[in-house]
Amino acid sequence: MSLPEHGQCRVVIERVTPEIDAGRFAIKRIVGDVVTVEADVFADGHDELSVEIDYRPVVATVWQSTRMTPLSNDRWAGRFRVEHLGEYRYTVRAWIDRFRSWRRDLIKRLDAGQDVQVDAQTGAKLIALAEDRASGADREMLADWQQRVLSGANDERRQAATDVGLLQLMDRWSEPSFPTRYERELRITVDRERARFSAWYELFPRSAAKEPGRHGTLKDVTERLPEIAAMEFDVVYLPPIHPIGRVHRKGRNNAVAAATDEVGCPWAIGAMEGGHKSILPELGTFADFENLVSQARSHQLEIALDIAFQCAPDHPYVAEHPEWFRKRPDGTVQYAENPPKKYQDIYPFDFECADWPALWTELKSIFEFWIDRGVRTFRVDNPHTKPFPFWEWCLGDLKRQHPDLIFLAEAFTRPKVMYRLAKLGFTQSYTYFAWRQSARDLTEYCTELTQTAVAEYFQPNFWPNTPDILTAELQTGGRPAFVRRLILAATLSSSYGVYGPPFEHLWSVAREPDSEEYLDSEKFEIQHHDWQRPDSLQTLIAMVNRIRREHPALQTNGGLRFHPVDNERLLCFSKSSVAGDQRVLIVVNLDNEITQAGFVNLPLQEWGLDATRPFAVHDRLTDARYEWRGPRNYVELHPHPWPAHILEVRPGMG
Amino acid sequence: MSLPEHGQCRVVIERVTPEIDAGRFAIKRIVGDVVTVEADVFADGHDELSVEIDYRPVVATVWQSTRMTPLSNDRWAGRFRVEHLGEYRYTVRAWIDRFRSWRRDLIKRLDAGQDVQVDAQTGAKLIALAEDRASGADREMLADWQQRVLSGANDERRQAATDVGLLQLMDRWSEPSFPTRYERELRITVDRERARFSAWYELFPRSAAKEPGRHGTLKDVTERLPEIAAMEFDVVYLPPIHPIGRVHRKGRNNAVAAATDEVGCPWAIGAMEGGHKSILPELGTFADFENLVSQARSHQLEIALDIAFQCAPDHPYVAEHPEWFRKRPDGTVQYAENPPKKYQDIYPFDFECADWPALWTELKSIFEFWIDRGVRTFRVDNPHTKPFPFWEWCLGDLKRQHPDLIFLAEAFTRPKVMYRLAKLGFTQSYTYFAWRQSARDLTEYCTELTQTAVAEYFQPNFWPNTPDILTAELQTGGRPAFVRRLILAATLSSSYGVYGPPFEHLWSVAREPDSEEYLDSEKFEIQHHDWQRPDSLQTLIAMVNRIRREHPALQTNGGLRFHPVDNERLLCFSKSSVAGDQRVLIVVNLDNEITQAGFVNLPLQEWGLDATRPFAVHDRLTDARYEWRGPRNYVELHPHPWPAHILEVRPGMG
Repeated sequence: MSLPEHGQCRVVIERVTPEIDAGRFAIKRIVGDVVTVEADVFADGHDELSVEIDYRPVVATVWQSTRMTPLSNDRWAGRFRVEHLGEYRYTVRAWIDRFRSWRRDLIKRLDAGQDVQVDAQTGAKLIALAEDRASGADREMLADWQQRVLSGANDERRQAATDVGLLQLMDRWSEPSFPTRYERELRITVDRERARFSAWYELFPRSAAKEPGRHGTLKDVTERLPEIAAMEFDVVYLPPIHPIGRVHRKGRNNAVAAATDEVGCPWAIGAMEGGHKSILPELGTFADFENLVSQARSHQLEIALDIAFQCAPDHPYVAEHPEWFRKRPDGTVQYAENPPKKYQDIYPFDFECADWPALWTELKSIFEFWIDRGVRTFRVDNPHTKPFPFWEWCLGDLKRQHPDLIFLAEAFTRPKVMYRLAKLGFTQSYTYFAWRQSARDLTEYCTELTQTAVAEYFQPNFWPNTPDILTAELQTGGRPAFVRRLILAATLSSSYGVYGPPFEHLWSVAREPDSEEYLDSEKFEIQHHDWQRPDSLQTLIAMVNRIRREHPALQTNGGLRFHPVDNERLLCFSKSSVAGDQRVLIVVNLDNEITQAGFVNLPLQEWGLDATRPFAVHDRLTDARYEWRGPRNYVELHPHPWPAHILEVRPGMG
Repeated sequence: MSLPEHGQCRVVIERVTPEIDAGRFAIKRIVGDVVTVEADVFADGHDELSVEIDYRPVVATVWQSTRMTPLSNDRWAGRFRVEHLGEYRYTVRAWIDRFRSWRRDLIKRLDAGQDVQVDAQTGAKLIALAEDRASGADREMLADWQQRVLSGANDERRQAATDVGLLQLMDRWSEPSFPTRYERELRITVDRERARFSAWYELFPRSAAKEPGRHGTLKDVTERLPEIAAMEFDVVYLPPIHPIGRVHRKGRNNAVAAATDEVGCPWAIGAMEGGHKSILPELGTFADFENLVSQARSHQLEIALDIAFQCAPDHPYVAEHPEWFRKRPDGTVQYAENPPKKYQDIYPFDFECADWPALWTELKSIFEFWIDRGVRTFRVDNPHTKPFPFWEWCLGDLKRQHPDLIFLAEAFTRPKVMYRLAKLGFTQSYTYFAWRQSARDLTEYCTELTQTAVAEYFQPNFWPNTPDILTAELQTGGRPAFVRRLILAATLSSSYGVYGPPFEHLWSVAREPDSEEYLDSEKFEIQHHDWQRPDSLQTLIAMVNRIRREHPALQTNGGLRFHPVDNERLLCFSKSSVAGDQRVLIVVNLDNEITQAGFVNLPLQEWGLDATRPFAVHDRLTDARYEWRGPRNYVELHPHPWPAHILEVRPGMG
C-alpha cells in the first residue's frame, strides 16, 4: 500500500459539530447569528496544539479564521458570526504548535532549575522563522525577542515564554507546521430573520370582499392589509390564486360534483384560462397582484403564495405535455389515489417520467415566475408527495439565485420525511403542534424540535388551525381553547401562523363527527367574514404579536426550557434570548372549564437570580405585577379571559 | 444548476448503523459473526419499498444481498454472516417496489368492491416484465400468473396479490426501478476469534530460568509452556527480546546508571549486536525462537512479541540513519523527554522527518520480519506517542497481507486517543481497568466499552497488573484483591491478561510509597520465580480460564449487563451468549477484609425465567448449587477463598 499523502500531518480532527449527516446537508442560521463549532482535536504525544475554524461565505474566495480553545477531554470550541445572506462553508484546521510547546516546556525546565541553554536556541530558532515571514514593526519586535531568548538571562527567557504580546506575534507570523484540515467542508444556509421569526396570516382572497355575496378579489385583500398589519402579523399567505379546473370540479363540502355556479377548490389548479402562471380572472389582474405585493411591503407585510404541484384535468399542461403524467393501461391519465380513495379532479405529475428534466425545469420556472413578480415567500403544498431529489435541486438552485427566499413545507407526514425536507432546503415546516395538547406531549415534542440536532436544520411553524385542520380541541373547547392554542403557538415557536378569519371568529363546527374538516369549508365555497364582530380575537392576537416583537426571547427557539409544575393541567416554560440576558416565563392553563392552580418550580440559579431575595414578574397580558421569592411560586389561571401568563422576569422588586 | 444525475431515484437512505465516523473506519467482527445493519429508508408518497443490504468480502467482486425488513418509524433492519477473514464492505440499496405496491393496493380496491379491470392490467404488465427476464420453470410460472391476473376472476387476482410464491418469483426476476444506493460503502474488519476471546500471559524470558542466578533463555520459556498451557492461557507475551543498549543503560530500580554487570531494560532497544530485527544473544538464537513459536502452537498457545518503536543511543539505526532522529541545536540527538523529565537512554524516531517514507517503511518491515518468523500477535508499546497516520498505513498494509494478525495497543492515554488507535487498526487495547475499582466506576466504564458505539471498534483487554502497574489495591489488598481482580478481568472482558509470575505469586511491594512500580522490577533486573510455590494462584487461574473456555457468554462482551445490589461493596453482573441462550451471573465482593451480603435483583423476565418458580444456580468456582426464586436473591461472599460467585443460571431445579 502506498504511503499516505499527508503522513506528516499528525493532528486528528474528529466529531465536528454541528454537522448534519456527515456534512451532506447545511445547518441553518440567520444573518448576524453566532455559530459555535466544536471538535475533538488531538495528536500523538504531548505537544501543544493550535486549532482554528476556517469559514467563508461561499461567494468569497478567502477563508477567515478564528482560534478555538480547549474545553476538556480533547474537545475544542470556537465561534464566528455569519454576516451575509446565502451559503457559508466552515471547517476546522489544527497543527502542532511548536512555539506553544516550547513555551510550556521552557517554564517547566526553568521551574526545575535545569540548564536551558540548548532549549533557548530552539526557541530562538522558532522566533527567527517567524521573523523571516514578518514585516514592519512586528519584524523588529520579533528580532528583539529572538535576541533576548538567545542571549538573555533566564529571567528574560521566562518572560518570552509567558509574554502574551510575543505569543500574538508568533500566532500572526509562524507558519503552521503540517496542518491537518478536517476532511469535510460543512455548509451553512444563512437566511434573513423572517426565516426564523414570523407570524403568518392565511386568508382566502375570494372570501375577502367586504360585502357579502360578492367574489372577493386581490384588491379586497389589499384593503384588508391595514387590519392584518394592525394585528402585527408578518406574512399574509394566500391559497392558490390560479384558474380552477372545471373537470370533476368539487362542490360545497367536498361534494363529488359541483353545481355550475360553484367556485371549486383552489388546489385543483388549471383550466382553459391558464395554469400555475396565471391568476383566476375573478381575483383580478397581474397589476392587482403587484399592487398587493407592494402595498403589503409598505405595511411591513409580505405576501406568501401557495405552490401546489398538481393539475386539474383541464390544466393546459395535460394537453400540452401528456408525457408528464402517468398513463393507466386503458390510456387515460392516472388521477391521484390513496386506495381505495380516488381524487379524479387531480392529476399528479410523474416526476420519474422519461422527460423529467423538462418537467422539473418547468416546475422550477413556476417559482421563478412569481419571484419575478415580487414574491419571496412560498408555502409548498404536500412536498412529501414529490421526490426528494427534485426539492434539493429546485430549492438549491432558487436559493443560490435568491438567498432571501423562504419556503414553508406543508409536510404533514412521518417525522423522518419532514426532517429530510428541511435538510433538503425547506426553510420552515408545518408540524404536529395541532395535535400536541397535553403538557407531556407538548414538552416532549418541543424538546425534540428545539434541543436536539433537529434544531440545526428544522424551523417549526406552529399552526393552531389550517383550512384542513379544525382539531377536536377547537371544536369543543370554546374561546379558552382558541386563546390557549394561540398563546402556545406564538410563544413555543418563534414562527407560527393562523388560518385567520375562521380563527378570529372562533369557527368550530366540523363537517361531520370525527372530522377535522370545517363545515362549509372555504376550500370549496366563498364565505363572508365580518371583521368588525365584537367577539373577534383580533385585539388579543395583536397583543400577543406585539409581545413577540418586543421580546427577543420569543424570536428564537434555542432558549426554550420546560419547568416542573405540580399540576398536570398547567404547562410552564420559559424562553431566553440568545444572549441569555432576557427571559419570558409562560404558564398556560390547559383546561377549558376549570381554574387550575399550582406551584411552578424555577431554575433561579441558572437564571442568575438570588433564591433568597424577591424578584419581579410582570404579566404582559393583564399588566399584573407580582413579587416572587425562591424557586417555588404559586400560579392560578382561570379559563377566561386569559388562560395564560406571559411574564417578564426581572431581578429586584416589581 | 444542472439537474441531479439520479433524479429518478426516489428512495432516501439515511442513518445507516453501524457506521463509524461517516464510514471513515471499519467496524470489527469475528469470523462467523452475524452483522445486523439498520437504516432509515423512505420515499415520497405511499409506495411500498424493497430494501436490501449489499455485502461482500473486499476480495470478492460480486455483491451478495439480503432483504431488510421494516421495524417502525421508517427504520429497517437486516443481517448477514461474515464467513471469511479480512475486510468486508457493506451498504444499503432500496427502490420503489411496484409489484408490492400493486399487491397492497389491489387488495384495498377489492375489499372496497371497486372495479379492478384496469388495475389487473397494470399488475399483469409488471408480471410480464419479470417473465421477460426469467428462465426455465420460473418463466412458465410467471406466464401462468400473468394470464390469471389479466383474465382471471377477481378471486384469482386476489390470490395473485397474496401468494408468497409469486412474490418470491417477482423478487427474483423483477428489475428494481431506479434503485438508490447509500452514498457510502462501509467497512468491516473480520478477525479470527482470538481477536475477541483471549487470555494473555506475560513473562520476561530472562527470568524464566528454572534455577536461580542464571540468565533465562527462549529455551527456558519453551520449557515453561506446558505449565502456561495448563493454566489455559491462549497467548504468551514476551517483552522485547532484542539487544539492549549500553549507553545510558538504567540500573536496578531505574537507577540512572547501571553497574557493568547489570542487564538493562528490554525497552531500551538496540546495541552493537543489532536492533529490532535481532535477538539478545543471552536469550538464544533464531532457531530457539522458531522452536518456541512452534512448540507454543502445539500447546494451542501463541507467542506475542512486543514492538517498541524507539532506540537506545547505541542502536545501529542511530549511526546508520541519523536523519530519522530529531537533532537538538547543539547537534546532539534529541532524547525522549516529558519536561522536566529526561530519558537519555531512549531516542524517539522523528516520524515527521524529511525522510519519513524510508523510516516508516523500515519500521513496518520490523513487523514483517517477525511475521516471517511465525509471529501473528503483537503488543505495541506506547502507540499513542507515534503519529496516527503511521499506524493507519502500517497496520492497514500488514492486515491486508495477513488478515490473521492481532495488534494489542498499549495505549494508556486519554480516551479519545485510545479510541482513535482502535479505529485505525489496533485489534485490542489496554484500558483503565486497573484503576476502576468501585462498583460504580466498573459499571460506568464497562457500560461505555460494551454498550455504546465504542464496542463496534474497540476490543478491551483487561489487565490487573503489568510490569508498569502495581496498583495500590494489589499492594494493600492481599490475596482477596488478587483473586477479585483476576475474576473481574476474566469475566468483565472477553480478553484479559496478567503479568504472570508476579501475579501468581502475589507480588505486592512497590518501589516507593505512592508508586505503581514494582520494587526490584523485572524491567531492570533478572528475577527468579519458583513455579512450585504452594501459595501460587496457578490452580485458581486455571479454573477461571477453564470456565471462560466452557462458557460462550464469557467469550464476548455485548451481553454484559449490570444488576442492582443493595450493598455497594458487592458488584453483580451477567453475561449472555450472542444467541442469548446461555447466561453466567457473577457476583463479586469488593471488600478485602469483610464478608459482604445483600440482595441482588435480576431481570428474570428478560431471561425468560418464571418469577414464580424456582431456578437453579450453580457456582462453578465452589461447585455449590442454590435454588433461587423470584428476582431478589440473597448472596453472601467472604473474602476467602473465593470473593466471588461465577454462577450458571438454568431454569428448573438445581
